[in-house]
Amino acid sequence: MQIKKFRRASGLFVVEGAKNLLELLSSDFKVQTLYLTPEFHKGLETLMPDNLPVVHVSEDSIKPAGNLESNAAGMAIVAMKDNTPLFPEKAEYLLVLDEVKDPGNLGTIIRIADWYGVKKVVCSRDTADLYNPKVIQASMGSFTRVRLYYCDLLEYFTQLDRTTYPVWAATLKGRNLYKEPFKEQGVVLLGNESRGISPELLSFVNSEITIPKFGGAESLNVGVATAVILDNVRRKFLELT
Amino acid sequence: MQIKKFRRASGLFVVEGAKNLLELLSSDFKVQTLYLTPEFHKGLETLMPDNLPVVHVSEDSIKPAGNLESNAAGMAIVAMKDNTPLFPEKAEYLLVLDEVKDPGNLGTIIRIADWYGVKKVVCSRDTADLYNPKVIQASMGSFTRVRLYYCDLLEYFTQLDRTTYPVWAATLKGRNLYKEPFKEQGVVLLGNESRGISPELLSFVNSEITIPKFGGAESLNVGVATAVILDNVRRKFLELT
Repeated sequence: MQIKKFRRASGLFVVEGAKNLLELLSSDFKVQTLYLTPEFHKGLETLMPDNLPVVHVSEDSIKPAGNLESNAAGMAIVAMKDNTPLFPEKAEYLLVLDEVKDPGNLGTIIRIADWYGVKKVVCSRDTADLYNPKVIQASMGSFTRVRLYYCDLLEYFTQLDRTTYPVWAATLKGRNLYKEPFKEQGVVLLGNESRGISPELLSFVNSEITIPKFGGAESLNVGVATAVILDNVRRKFLELT
Repeated sequence: MQIKKFRRASGLFVVEGAKNLLELLSSDFKVQTLYLTPEFHKGLETLMPDNLPVVHVSEDSIKPAGNLESNAAGMAIVAMKDNTPLFPEKAEYLLVLDEVKDPGNLGTIIRIADWYGVKKVVCSRDTADLYNPKVIQASMGSFTRVRLYYCDLLEYFTQLDRTTYPVWAATLKGRNLYKEPFKEQGVVLLGNESRGISPELLSFVNSEITIPKFGGAESLNVGVATAVILDNVRRKFLELT
């Protein structure tokens, strides 16, 4: 389960730790087996679906099987969801990620999307795998509320109605984010940690935007940039209504 | 150098990788020794101070000594700076961190502070150590432009002129960040990754602020919250001028 090709072959992934397990059990993900400490299990009674097999384990035995430094709760083996196409709908914002490689960054972006009410994230095929344990962990349960779709982004953008859903791209040489006339719906495109957005995707972009800089840092982390942009989008739209 | 007590005893710390080394050589930090690959050294000629000892190393030999997955540049042994008290001055914002434990978070916050032109960060003594290699790495060179001061925060706040420099604290039950009347100067206080801000510090806070939430996530990462708040502070002040 730690290695992508084995995960993909089994169609299963691992969820660990109290916060993620609680969110998982309140979600529509299909849990196959739960390995729980008796203490954590006891606190779950109302959340537990019927007929769900639970294996009791000790904290000492669960730790070496997983990726967490401490885990007093347990882990779950969960069925992956289908890779269903996702497009924006009316009054909706959607994120597109072009080769976000770092699993921690992807998990953080899923958490940020969830905070800002963005429910769909479209990823290039070389973006980190949603089911990587580090992504699940960094999402802090938000993987249960945000859908991901992996595809070829060139094909995706040719299918997207960019008149109705404009594409804003985060770059280092775009227009001032603070002055950008965001609409009530659209797409925000973010690029790779080092190289940014692939040049061949930029032709699909309606507007390049840049977060104003007041000091010396060369760039911001892609997760941080996502949060600042979505914050500006949401605040601007609140001002309009 | 990897362990805090040995670092503190020697007064030295390690800087690794091309980006951090380039920023280091343009800064006022005192470099004691440079271990560089000949290839990276060649590109540095104009940046190199006179009389600075350079030891040539191979990429293969530098990697096991450091913390990076790849490092084609080298590493430097650098003298720590004194822990000098830092207070805000006219037209300046300063960050205060109460027990930000994760080195990656501290490094990210330093990078964000640098982006938003915040040059001073005051840290509780139990905040991650600036000279931890993971902090230096995550700061992406910004440790050279942002000063840190470690102290007892209760004592710090009793010395701070909070009438001239109001303290805004990031909490989950504060006032709407978007509507907050930020001044041209002040202090932003951020708390521990799990527990938030210590209750005994909240009595020194002029206003608790919260980032508006539009979806399901319970919280945002402390680095992400720092960026969103500083972005709002800077934008608001631009609107006023």
